[in-house]
Amino acid sequence: MSDLPDTEFSLIRRLFAPLSDEAHGFGLRDDVALVPPSEPGKQSCVTKDMIVAGVHFLPDDPPDLIARKLIRVNVSDLVAKGAVPDSCLLAAAFNSDRDIAWIEAFAAGLAEDLETYGMALIGGDTVRTPGPDTFSLTAFGHVGRRTIVLRSGAQAGDNLYVTGTIGDAGLGLKILRGDLGTVALGIRTRLEERYRLPQPRAEFGRALSNFATAALDVSDGLVADASHMAEASGLAARIEFDRVPLSSSATRLVKKDKALHLSLLGAGDDYEILFAAPASASDAIAAASGQADTPLTRIGQLVSGTPGDVTVLDTDGAALDLPTPGYRHF
Amino acid sequence: MSDLPDTEFSLIRRLFAPLSDEAHGFGLRDDVALVPPSEPGKQSCVTKDMIVAGVHFLPDDPPDLIARKLIRVNVSDLVAKGAVPDSCLLAAAFNSDRDIAWIEAFAAGLAEDLETYGMALIGGDTVRTPGPDTFSLTAFGHVGRRTIVLRSGAQAGDNLYVTGTIGDAGLGLKILRGDLGTVALGIRTRLEERYRLPQPRAEFGRALSNFATAALDVSDGLVADASHMAEASGLAARIEFDRVPLSSSATRLVKKDKALHLSLLGAGDDYEILFAAPASASDAIAAASGQADTPLTRIGQLVSGTPGDVTVLDTDGAALDLPTPGYRHF
Repeated sequence: MSDLPDTEFSLIRRLFAPLSDEAHGFGLRDDVALVPPSEPGKQSCVTKDMIVAGVHFLPDDPPDLIARKLIRVNVSDLVAKGAVPDSCLLAAAFNSDRDIAWIEAFAAGLAEDLETYGMALIGGDTVRTPGPDTFSLTAFGHVGRRTIVLRSGAQAGDNLYVTGTIGDAGLGLKILRGDLGTVALGIRTRLEERYRLPQPRAEFGRALSNFATAALDVSDGLVADASHMAEASGLAARIEFDRVPLSSSATRLVKKDKALHLSLLGAGDDYEILFAAPASASDAIAAASGQADTPLTRIGQLVSGTPGDVTVLDTDGAALDLPTPGYRHF
Repeated sequence: MSDLPDTEFSLIRRLFAPLSDEAHGFGLRDDVALVPPSEPGKQSCVTKDMIVAGVHFLPDDPPDLIARKLIRVNVSDLVAKGAVPDSCLLAAAFNSDRDIAWIEAFAAGLAEDLETYGMALIGGDTVRTPGPDTFSLTAFGHVGRRTIVLRSGAQAGDNLYVTGTIGDAGLGLKILRGDLGTVALGIRTRLEERYRLPQPRAEFGRALSNFATAALDVSDGLVADASHMAEASGLAARIEFDRVPLSSSATRLVKKDKALHLSLLGAGDDYEILFAAPASASDAIAAASGQADTPLTRIGQLVSGTPGDVTVLDTDGAALDLPTPGYRHF
């Protein structure tokens, strides 16, 4: 069989095989990979997120950033459980109109962030689609046998914390869609970047199992994800609206727009870590925040109540009405 | 948060969570799953295939058969390596127009074949897409540490075998597309079924590591997949055209059409196992074929030569010209 430069196989060999390893990925020359075994006392965990052009990213986003976002949304799931990323498999359906240069740029972005997170590409599938580009990553990590932090471990009375700032990615998406009119260049750049290139809290995630009773990454929206955690833990949650941390850019934009401010609690894509921890852990939490150089804010509490109920309280203690709790596909 | 009947979360809870387990999939209530650990002396392997409506299946195929095909193309990859399927993660992008009844039927098909192959659904992602339905499965299996059968182990002089029959699925697709005109109902039904519902050789796969030096499933086409194996093994392959096994239905259709007959060597989707084994293994192979009730045919040999070269020989020993070697996405 002749070796045309544009076949699926030569593309995999040229662009993706260099991102693999021999021990587990067989250099992408086989149909299966071996799951990298965990060290003694650890176990392998796995996550799988899918992103679709026009739904999870914009079709004209730079291809390298799309690839990096794909890796990061999966890394975010792992690190929010206290796991350390390890390897991944990629299923890529490239739209038929994407040329090789586009796919090369995608592969370059993939290479960059596999390096960032110390991961090997051990397998996958590459196809063409008449529809929007669609990518599914399966990412493996290692976590201590007793230290995986699930959604379900929170206790009534635990404090609720979030890393970084909330709402930047949602505002970035609104700006990219032209929904916010003219926005100063500096603010625009920072917020768009937050949407296009999530920054999973990998460093802070390593400390998570020392104090967190429950955790997950904020991808559907702060209130929606707080609800997921509360529901899995059989609890309700209370969030104090004025404690929800905003970046200076976001603060500028929502200053005169309460509705926009409220909407940030339902905006997705922040990829911060939301976690619950007992009050007794506050010193350990502060130390971890400092060591990982990760800003951290206590925003509320887990309480007894209807599982999954989230109440957002205004400064006067009154419950706020929220526009939408979070992104919904269905 | 109110619990609308049509959210992603309630859909997952109602349709997909019952297919999960607690020990590794956490009932689909978390963002990660634990990879089921392998028994002593075994290791976990993983594969990931993606299927797209209009590319790998027809958009109006019955949804339960689409789900079952998705599972089976992945199971096929595992069993062709000597692995036993174990669990999986599903990333599903349903077209926005698919209603809940369609998704329910898809989930029912998934349930049926997870049961068939003894697998649990331990995680994944469910989204909507404006494009064609796109599904990616990540499937885990267990395989003995020294018994995984790769593409790369064939030796010069090894015989080349294939299970079952070749070309049925390709003919089924041609019939479904109306490319073959009127076809007798019995033949039509059998061949369409071969396209829509692959029958991975799970039983035979369990014996594979006893004799096979190299193996893979026939998904791209017989010649293309023989080429993959030969290339990975640094060898060439010879296939005797009149030894390639056809079903009685296929035989009827190609009887007066040599071009159609030849095209079957490039038709994909058969999901039979193609493997190499030394001549000394022929007794063990015959025994395994009998035990697994799996028809088996010796169709050629691996030989020294340009790696990946496949020659198809006519009865008079002359090399045949083939139309296309196999399905290409790019």
